[in-house]
Amino acid sequence: MKAWLISILVGGTAFAHAADPLPSWNDTAPKQSIISFVEKVTKDGASDFVPAAERIAVFDNDGCLWAEQPMYFQLFFAIDRIKALAPQHPEWKDKEPFASLLKGDTKAALAGGEHALAQIVMATHAGLTTEEFEKIVTDWISTAKHPKTGKLFTQMVYQPMLELLAYLRANGFKTYIVSGGGIEFMRPWTERVYGIPPEQVIGSTGGLKYEIRDGKPALVKLPEIAHNDDKDGKPIGIQRHIGRRPIFAAGNSDGDLAMLQWTAAGDRTNFCLYVHHTDAAREWAYDRESPIGKLDKGLDEANAKRWNVIDMKSDWNIIFPVTP
Amino acid sequence: MKAWLISILVGGTAFAHAADPLPSWNDTAPKQSIISFVEKVTKDGASDFVPAAERIAVFDNDGCLWAEQPMYFQLFFAIDRIKALAPQHPEWKDKEPFASLLKGDTKAALAGGEHALAQIVMATHAGLTTEEFEKIVTDWISTAKHPKTGKLFTQMVYQPMLELLAYLRANGFKTYIVSGGGIEFMRPWTERVYGIPPEQVIGSTGGLKYEIRDGKPALVKLPEIAHNDDKDGKPIGIQRHIGRRPIFAAGNSDGDLAMLQWTAAGDRTNFCLYVHHTDAAREWAYDRESPIGKLDKGLDEANAKRWNVIDMKSDWNIIFPVTP
Repeated sequence: MKAWLISILVGGTAFAHAADPLPSWNDTAPKQSIISFVEKVTKDGASDFVPAAERIAVFDNDGCLWAEQPMYFQLFFAIDRIKALAPQHPEWKDKEPFASLLKGDTKAALAGGEHALAQIVMATHAGLTTEEFEKIVTDWISTAKHPKTGKLFTQMVYQPMLELLAYLRANGFKTYIVSGGGIEFMRPWTERVYGIPPEQVIGSTGGLKYEIRDGKPALVKLPEIAHNDDKDGKPIGIQRHIGRRPIFAAGNSDGDLAMLQWTAAGDRTNFCLYVHHTDAAREWAYDRESPIGKLDKGLDEANAKRWNVIDMKSDWNIIFPVTP
Repeated sequence: MKAWLISILVGGTAFAHAADPLPSWNDTAPKQSIISFVEKVTKDGASDFVPAAERIAVFDNDGCLWAEQPMYFQLFFAIDRIKALAPQHPEWKDKEPFASLLKGDTKAALAGGEHALAQIVMATHAGLTTEEFEKIVTDWISTAKHPKTGKLFTQMVYQPMLELLAYLRANGFKTYIVSGGGIEFMRPWTERVYGIPPEQVIGSTGGLKYEIRDGKPALVKLPEIAHNDDKDGKPIGIQRHIGRRPIFAAGNSDGDLAMLQWTAAGDRTNFCLYVHHTDAAREWAYDRESPIGKLDKGLDEANAKRWNVIDMKSDWNIIFPVTP
């Protein structure tokens, strides 16, 4: 083929490749090491080369792809559901954690810890079909706003991470979410917001029952937890869903540590990244002492193992996408 | 662009498209209806069009993609493992189902039903790391032979189904296995044999535990069943792993009926297929009375709902791939 023809045909691609794939990242160490890693594993014939089929990248969601303060966004959803369902449950007026939630005292409601959380999740999920639940989430996520910023929750995703996801995919990576959040709370909107399809979302999972309802097959949500996709549950969720070890893992809390350890222990060249919340002005600043997204042991291990720790304040020039 | 240039650039594709994508299928009704379905859902702008992201196709494995007689191939594997492990378990000599298995009396061993099966599976899985288990399966599948045909088990896959998988993928479908078999028994070889990567294999799943072994993270198999991917478990497995309803489903037994019902009840144009084992000369002939791969209720429902029932004897001109 004539050179001018090749140039016409591949010109668009060549241009896109030359442009900065991570414009919201400052030219500090993390950006350089991400690009260097991607170039290494995609260079055919090099010792670090990883075949495209094995380029699995996993991302935590809360605090890693979108914000998580002052509490996990799924909790705002659950509280709105509790309020909507309260008229059908007069007994909740005297029963924790519902009583406190309905009075607006989230802190008291969550004092019951994981048990309280499980009760809230179950009360707001159980008995619904998967299709009913998907519709409820879709409606909520398109209208509910964050109490502090007034933004839609899906506008509180991190622009630099959106660029990172797209950059990895452009280089043959399959990008997954591996979150402690509910799998069916995330799936209705992750494709639109992150470019991650439902089958690449791994999360905490409730029981399901197959039954015929009104003559049609339905999957009904049960009040039980089938998989808790946090801490040790993350590598387990990865093994169940993917069956291959990732070569790229990103998280922001101690809940992601097992996932990063599992990734780092693979035979292939790999990359582990922690997002460190250091920017109280543009987002929130928290780590070792935070009740939400606590990063303590993980920070020590990241430092010891020289994983990449993103300092949000100095490494990112934008936090949230600029919305018109 | 000049017409001659377009012709050069797309010529190869046009040619491939014109060739018969299903040469091992006779020109009977099922082949015609598969091709007609694929053309309908891939024709942009038509009322039956389905976007590529939603073209999910699910296939049972045992009896649908490979043979399953005189017993599920995973059982041959389990028996070989029991024999290999027997010296470490002197107590098995007097304990069912192991005693009968070691004497070669599989029928007596399996008389204990699902409980016996679970004991065999647990004894051969538990305590191994996922990597150890993968290596054991990989070694076994590359050498073990079927007692009747003398073929490797991976040579007893159905050539017409391999063509169907490839044809669907060439038309933008994502192909999945949804099997009652063990997820980690299938994953080590499905990519090589079927072109289906591990992350698109759904199967019965054991418990896993994350732990640090010899200073390295490991996932250890536990003696418990986390998900039984048969009957009602199939639509549940599909929902958990994929989170979208398939538009194409293929099975061969009553164990696949819920999966086909779930697929058929979707809003999109869809296709349900049963492989009916009718060829005693080239394979096996069985249906309503068979202890393995029983097809009874499913056959009635397929007839009532006009699903596609493949008559292996008359619809397929080859059963197994021709091996050199």
